[in-house]
Amino acid sequence: MGRSLRSDFTDTTMFSSAHLSPARDSLLFTPGPLTTSLQVKQAMLHDAGSWHADFNAVVASVRGRLLGLAGVSSGTGWTVIPLQGSGTFGVEAVFQSCVPPQGKVVVLTNGAYGDRIVQILEHASIDHVVLATAEDTPAEPETLEECLEADKTVTHVAVVHCETTTGLLNPISALGQVAKCHDKVFIVDAMSSFGGMPIDFEGCGIDFLVSSSNKCIEGVPGFSFIFCRGEVLLACEGWARSLSLDLLGQLQGFERNGQFRFTPPTHVMLAFDQALRELEAEGGVAARHERYVRNHTTLMVGMRGLGFRPYLDPSVQSPIITTFQYPTSEFDFSGFYRALSERGFIIYPGKLTRVNTFRIGNIGRLFPADMEQLVHAIGVVAQATRGGSPNP
Amino acid sequence: MGRSLRSDFTDTTMFSSAHLSPARDSLLFTPGPLTTSLQVKQAMLHDAGSWHADFNAVVASVRGRLLGLAGVSSGTGWTVIPLQGSGTFGVEAVFQSCVPPQGKVVVLTNGAYGDRIVQILEHASIDHVVLATAEDTPAEPETLEECLEADKTVTHVAVVHCETTTGLLNPISALGQVAKCHDKVFIVDAMSSFGGMPIDFEGCGIDFLVSSSNKCIEGVPGFSFIFCRGEVLLACEGWARSLSLDLLGQLQGFERNGQFRFTPPTHVMLAFDQALRELEAEGGVAARHERYVRNHTTLMVGMRGLGFRPYLDPSVQSPIITTFQYPTSEFDFSGFYRALSERGFIIYPGKLTRVNTFRIGNIGRLFPADMEQLVHAIGVVAQATRGGSPNP
Repeated sequence: MGRSLRSDFTDTTMFSSAHLSPARDSLLFTPGPLTTSLQVKQAMLHDAGSWHADFNAVVASVRGRLLGLAGVSSGTGWTVIPLQGSGTFGVEAVFQSCVPPQGKVVVLTNGAYGDRIVQILEHASIDHVVLATAEDTPAEPETLEECLEADKTVTHVAVVHCETTTGLLNPISALGQVAKCHDKVFIVDAMSSFGGMPIDFEGCGIDFLVSSSNKCIEGVPGFSFIFCRGEVLLACEGWARSLSLDLLGQLQGFERNGQFRFTPPTHVMLAFDQALRELEAEGGVAARHERYVRNHTTLMVGMRGLGFRPYLDPSVQSPIITTFQYPTSEFDFSGFYRALSERGFIIYPGKLTRVNTFRIGNIGRLFPADMEQLVHAIGVVAQATRGGSPNP
Repeated sequence: MGRSLRSDFTDTTMFSSAHLSPARDSLLFTPGPLTTSLQVKQAMLHDAGSWHADFNAVVASVRGRLLGLAGVSSGTGWTVIPLQGSGTFGVEAVFQSCVPPQGKVVVLTNGAYGDRIVQILEHASIDHVVLATAEDTPAEPETLEECLEADKTVTHVAVVHCETTTGLLNPISALGQVAKCHDKVFIVDAMSSFGGMPIDFEGCGIDFLVSSSNKCIEGVPGFSFIFCRGEVLLACEGWARSLSLDLLGQLQGFERNGQFRFTPPTHVMLAFDQALRELEAEGGVAARHERYVRNHTTLMVGMRGLGFRPYLDPSVQSPIITTFQYPTSEFDFSGFYRALSERGFIIYPGKLTRVNTFRIGNIGRLFPADMEQLVHAIGVVAQATRGGSPNP
């Protein structure tokens, strides 16, 4: 199905950007922006008025369906707030809006996205404690317990669910239970997992969860969305350090007149509406998770066959993105990347500081057959690339 | 030309959002999001990797061409920084990044967008002075002069060029000269004017100027862009109160590897690239300004013929958007808006507190013939709407 959608779109006269290859788009094996369906992109062929009732009905529908996907409801006090900008803007909005002046945040980190939360807190001059583990080691509930036991001034606990740096999954259920035992606000960055993996919001004790339009919902980039318990957010009145990133202000805007306070990315929202429709047609989060698991399994079988080794232990590996070690110390990643790119496959560089790695994403409009084609191309290219041939 | 572009796109099978009318898109006589060309929207039918060289070549090209449109160059120290989010995010980024902890900003305001700058400063706890004039009265260079003479602690001066609340133009050249005489940093919100009106950056003493993707460049919404003098921005190292809105950090990201620091709205950027191409083909800013002036003149002649009166004096009126007074005290704006909307014309409500008004925008893929059609529809609808028939 993925292949047939793409092959519909080979008319070079439609191609308007001189810088990109005109034949067809490459497949993106990345953590987002992703390969999306043609229908998702076609939904952007309309100019909608951001003040008009028709557009605001789309926004209201999208917000309601997101709550449904999350398995929560406004009846039990949940709301979801779309916010302009990338996922990082959404994560920052939670801290800039919802940590009081005297608040203190524990950040559990094992990668670039956990570290980014620390950077956000540094910029906003918000007091914080960092509990770091190695990049291949999940955050530890015991360490969090000790920290909260020792430091009673902590008000918030924050963690990344799927750390896209490696593909590692953090144990948000166990961490959330510790946070809740100590009556702390629990904030989860589920950027690259929401919609592609089941998440038990109530069971994990989540107060805020952030994701974005261009991850497992398979929309295009342009906004993030933040789930939150209404009562927790309402308690934040007057705390926002930023107007644009004021989460409560954004919610009050929707409640006042159904509109974004400031110009929304209307086309991106129409694409997201279509992406949600396709997720629903696929069978919801469970079915999408199953496809990503099949993509991941197909990739792993193929890559192991070629002699590539994953960076993470399987027990902590998500089905979202996989990090592979360079096969040899002479491995020429640039040449490898370029050769794959010329064949229409875009992979992702590594982001680790101490180990040479690259990454392959399983999310987006990709299917097991696409993973098989990628593995085939990697086999051919690795043979041809100097230093790129591992020893199976 | 506008009409023929739109009539190309009446295939209802392409229509993917159930909430919008399937026949064809309404024309948007608004300050943005706007009616854009079909080619601009078609440029979004591609998924680009945000890390990939092809996409980053588009970003580099767009940044270079924006400097050209502005009539400035990197050779004389200018740079332009695209930032995810709406225009307000771009305006806020300047203050959150570039006002030092002990800084103080004078804000000249005569409408909602000037007031929004004040809200930004309040949220960020930045000291400021507000110099307000009535909503129909331009900011006064003499008042600014007195203020800067009296208060030597001021560091920055900020003003909106075209106040979209009314369509009023503020005298940025005279204001900038006063700011420069006193050696203050001069910040201009040119959201709805840049690209549609010539602006003499050097002559106006501008240090920072902000606009966005969905205004006079006629792209789709999703990012803002901030012109700045590199030396002024470089002096701001360490001041940013926000990570996402850190302007210097964003610039350093582009300089490091040509990439956005955080996921960019890739499709919106491809649309903007195409929109710039169309602006260049039209003949640049001068030609676009001329079209907007013709749109405005056509609208004014028609509306005066119907007995509608503009809110502003012609001497302070921009060609961007025009505010009209309700023709009678019984005027039913809701019915008027709905009836026009049913005919495919979306106008914009007023935003004034003390006078009942509505607004009509002249920007976007609109031509004098579209303004004539709108005027005709307004004549028909005003007759039919209770209280809507003015006395010519």
